[in-house]
Amino acid sequence: MNILDIKNPRFLKKMKIKDLEILSQDIRNFIIDHVSKNGGHLSSNLGITDLTIAIHKVFNSPRDKIVFDVSHQCYTHKILTGRAREFDKLRKIDGLSGFQKRKESQYDSYEAGHSSTSISAALGMAIARDKQKKNYHVIAIIGDGSMGNGLPYEAINHLGDIKTRLIIILNDNEMSISKNVGALHNNLDKIRANYKYHDIKNTTKKILNHIPLIGKKLTIGITNLKSSLKKLYLKDGFLFEELGLKYYGPINGHDYHEMLTYLEMAKKETEPVIIHVITEKGKGYPPCENDLIGTWHGVGPFNKETGKFIIKNDNLITWSEVISNHLIELTKKHKEIMVITPAMAGGSKLLKYKELYPDNFIDAGIAEEHALLLANGMSLEGLIPFVSIYSTFLQRGYDEVLHDITRMNSPVILGIDRCGIVGEDGETHQGIYDLTFLMPLPNLIISAPKDSIEAGNLLYTAILSKRPFAIRYSKDRLEYQKDNYQIIPIGSWETITEGKDAVLITYGQFISNAKIIKEQLKDDIDLSIINARYLKPIDEKLFLELLNNYKYIFIYEEQTYINSLGSYLVNYANEHSYHGNILIFAIPDKYIEQGKKEEVLKRLQLDPESIAKKIKEIWNSHNLSA
Amino acid sequence: MNILDIKNPRFLKKMKIKDLEILSQDIRNFIIDHVSKNGGHLSSNLGITDLTIAIHKVFNSPRDKIVFDVSHQCYTHKILTGRAREFDKLRKIDGLSGFQKRKESQYDSYEAGHSSTSISAALGMAIARDKQKKNYHVIAIIGDGSMGNGLPYEAINHLGDIKTRLIIILNDNEMSISKNVGALHNNLDKIRANYKYHDIKNTTKKILNHIPLIGKKLTIGITNLKSSLKKLYLKDGFLFEELGLKYYGPINGHDYHEMLTYLEMAKKETEPVIIHVITEKGKGYPPCENDLIGTWHGVGPFNKETGKFIIKNDNLITWSEVISNHLIELTKKHKEIMVITPAMAGGSKLLKYKELYPDNFIDAGIAEEHALLLANGMSLEGLIPFVSIYSTFLQRGYDEVLHDITRMNSPVILGIDRCGIVGEDGETHQGIYDLTFLMPLPNLIISAPKDSIEAGNLLYTAILSKRPFAIRYSKDRLEYQKDNYQIIPIGSWETITEGKDAVLITYGQFISNAKIIKEQLKDDIDLSIINARYLKPIDEKLFLELLNNYKYIFIYEEQTYINSLGSYLVNYANEHSYHGNILIFAIPDKYIEQGKKEEVLKRLQLDPESIAKKIKEIWNSHNLSA
Repeated sequence: MNILDIKNPRFLKKMKIKDLEILSQDIRNFIIDHVSKNGGHLSSNLGITDLTIAIHKVFNSPRDKIVFDVSHQCYTHKILTGRAREFDKLRKIDGLSGFQKRKESQYDSYEAGHSSTSISAALGMAIARDKQKKNYHVIAIIGDGSMGNGLPYEAINHLGDIKTRLIIILNDNEMSISKNVGALHNNLDKIRANYKYHDIKNTTKKILNHIPLIGKKLTIGITNLKSSLKKLYLKDGFLFEELGLKYYGPINGHDYHEMLTYLEMAKKETEPVIIHVITEKGKGYPPCENDLIGTWHGVGPFNKETGKFIIKNDNLITWSEVISNHLIELTKKHKEIMVITPAMAGGSKLLKYKELYPDNFIDAGIAEEHALLLANGMSLEGLIPFVSIYSTFLQRGYDEVLHDITRMNSPVILGIDRCGIVGEDGETHQGIYDLTFLMPLPNLIISAPKDSIEAGNLLYTAILSKRPFAIRYSKDRLEYQKDNYQIIPIGSWETITEGKDAVLITYGQFISNAKIIKEQLKDDIDLSIINARYLKPIDEKLFLELLNNYKYIFIYEEQTYINSLGSYLVNYANEHSYHGNILIFAIPDKYIEQGKKEEVLKRLQLDPESIAKKIKEIWNSHNLSA
Repeated sequence: MNILDIKNPRFLKKMKIKDLEILSQDIRNFIIDHVSKNGGHLSSNLGITDLTIAIHKVFNSPRDKIVFDVSHQCYTHKILTGRAREFDKLRKIDGLSGFQKRKESQYDSYEAGHSSTSISAALGMAIARDKQKKNYHVIAIIGDGSMGNGLPYEAINHLGDIKTRLIIILNDNEMSISKNVGALHNNLDKIRANYKYHDIKNTTKKILNHIPLIGKKLTIGITNLKSSLKKLYLKDGFLFEELGLKYYGPINGHDYHEMLTYLEMAKKETEPVIIHVITEKGKGYPPCENDLIGTWHGVGPFNKETGKFIIKNDNLITWSEVISNHLIELTKKHKEIMVITPAMAGGSKLLKYKELYPDNFIDAGIAEEHALLLANGMSLEGLIPFVSIYSTFLQRGYDEVLHDITRMNSPVILGIDRCGIVGEDGETHQGIYDLTFLMPLPNLIISAPKDSIEAGNLLYTAILSKRPFAIRYSKDRLEYQKDNYQIIPIGSWETITEGKDAVLITYGQFISNAKIIKEQLKDDIDLSIINARYLKPIDEKLFLELLNNYKYIFIYEEQTYINSLGSYLVNYANEHSYHGNILIFAIPDKYIEQGKKEEVLKRLQLDPESIAKKIKEIWNSHNLSA
């Protein structure tokens, strides 16, 4: 059948397994084709194709509510619910979202982007269903990586207690974005190991056969059962059964017969059930299938035939890599550095660091709160932890920064990655809130480097400062340079260029935009550019001079208009009775949707051309009227 | 021995069990005595007295690091580490903190206030120890209530994987603040049930005797082992062993022989171990011992002999109770309301609501993130959830508000309790950050009632609004009044009194302070008082009028100076080229310590007298110079 003609998933009801298998392959090819052209999430979507088809065959969406955790793996779901034609604009401006999106389709019952929310949200829906005496199914589909976070545990702890009818599908592909870590993962590993050697239906029999052994080997002591024994009769899913869920599995996520059988059975259950499905990430596309480090998780365009990525031929690297390079340099002398990532070793370009300094590197799994507290504990006992964390994920660990790190004034360095507009991931991932919630925290130093050299120097300053210290950087690319590391006095700003008419204050990657703006305005306005490399504390001396010397101060930032640097400076100016004009150019008060960063900035009128135009208009109107 | 003479815990090393038991009783009496006079945390401290003594006898603090989770249960620890003499000032201004505090003592290796951080922090310390080739013990003491949160799970998931040497003591008293909820709790219940019927050492034998039964009863099917069977041979602690920890227990937390034996054994372990200790909350003080709802968790002064609380004889009730009363009223007509609390049914005065509407009430346990997501799921399927949450604990669910509730524009009502200065709990619990992190969130309506009637009307408006809606209230007490519910137009402010000279903008409980200020200034300055009952959106029309009509605008708030309403209004005024004077009186940029609220406000010069004085000074200086 033609994938593009699918309007809704009802056609699946009549399909035979053989046809489902053909459909799977067609959909996989469709996904590979589109992602190779435009980029997107690949491995996870190929792995879950069969499972998604099986779910839509057995359940009746939109009546039944299907909640994908994170939901970057919902491409097949989108295709089955009539959105294949929009795949040309997947993750593009005004196009199809890469995640479930309620506005986009009635088949999208929830939305995500961040991990581990699905079971809680699904439980809320199930409780609402019961309270209103409705009868639909709620199905949460969650990956094993997302299970490393505490949230699903909180939800299962609640669910196992109240026993509301709910179906959890654990999509276990042995990795989240990169190879998973943690004890739960080890537990799942054991289950998978059994799975490989035993026919499922015979496993229980075999366990029974082993039981006499237990008596012989059990030692009566304090620990009740030795680990080695446990393996003998600790059957699959105990961890979940202990928490009150009925466990089915493990079942083969590429075997329709098995999946349909178990899903039909789950449908008849009156209590919560977890179905443990083993899937192969990247299924059907060889380059993905053997990827252990997450190279094929979220990808840019690639050549479908060769599996080679289409890479830009320049000498620019990401900010993540710049920071990683400096960490590698600085760990040579500062062995007390510990780099911690919440499951973002690949995205944050820390794999090389990990290879060089395995003892200085910790992947804490998708567990931002734990990662930050771990860092705090380390910092109190003599280490210098550097927590590499995306701005949007730092939102998850806000209390750990406020209640623990900054309150105890601990020397933890926060490497805040993906600040500002993030592009194709859109609303859920924008890194535009961190300043709003970090600025009011006492003790914290907040900085943003303009380039690679400054990044190294700020990192060096942070290491020596013995204070909680945030270094913010964006998703852009830049040239890597290094020099001898130097301390940048805390709270010092830098005058990039001096001009007599007005001043433009900005920071981080936007310094390069400021230079474009200055150039564009050079015939009309002589602009000073100030690098506010410290957002907190600010350079009071320099800023007071600016207030004294300029009637026009422009602040330009890639953060929310409300409560970021501009807001802080306007308040400071107000305290000092400044009567000139201060204007802030920043992100307006709405959720910012997906699109290429340049496109998004342009639409928000925050690109250099728009800013130059606005400054010129203001300048002209004031000077013409004066 | 005289409790007051204790300098450090070294004296315990030589003590016999008989003497330890006498010491326990002396310390309990000391605690009961002091808490009855000054208030404090009682039940938990009486329950853990013996255990704390045992830990200090076996381990060598401060070399060994003892991390109390939450740490309101550390009174015995404080006494044993030489702080008994300071108990007269426990939780008072400049006095002893009610929590562990690093500045206070070298024996306090960590600090908390919020729950569930201990294992992560302890693991960080243990990793630092290993990395630096040191050899001390790290001991995390965590209650069963704190285990309902996802954080300890994240930490154990990590710990069970890397197997760093660490001792976790699970202090299981069958309740957190109020009776615990959740599947983990049910699991612990089962263990406790076994514990009551079996002598520990014989339990394993008995299990062996049961093994033949398994064969008969085991049904071969999809679920591997039936729940009923599990109980037979699923021994204690499996949940933890599954996650890679060695489990000891359950042991009696009031039996020194047992405790010392197991703690000594744990000391010799080379891998992580969890010791499950059953303690009796309120041990030794009958009124506490039978308390199931947490009445004796945190208390004010009481009569030691009668167990009666010393209550104020007035007609005032807490804001929590005002809100709860309105919820009871409004649920009569709006059955779709669901009240959700993260383990704060008592503190938030929701027990009566729970009794009247058990089907509309959910205690989600100490799991703020889950509580918020649950609410979001419900709201999308037709219910109107009201999440009752302390301002300080909302910090824990920030991403769930930003990424889920406000982003999806879901009709969830946030009842934000304990906003502003909270008094004796101090630094960790101040409710002074919620505006800073909520103001930049699109879609969210933020409000603060000045009195009981307005609280009811805002709640009524929130229910009808079908929007994410926050209602903030403080820890103060007020008169309960009700009237027919009326909608308060969203974004509308209220002029309380008009005056010609200057305007004072404030909100919530501070409106009553504003009236005092106006009265104190009446001979010199004719003050307008504006009730900014909506913090977002603001009343632009009225504020613009104020900007036009007044040269002096004062903003007075119990939130951080950085990034709260004042900051927002100064920016708004700046946008509108206001050239009068705006002054913000708010919380300075530092962590605010404990003390009675009035004392703390006075010290911060935020009490009505200080504000009146400041306004007068400014007024005089401007008008004398003019």
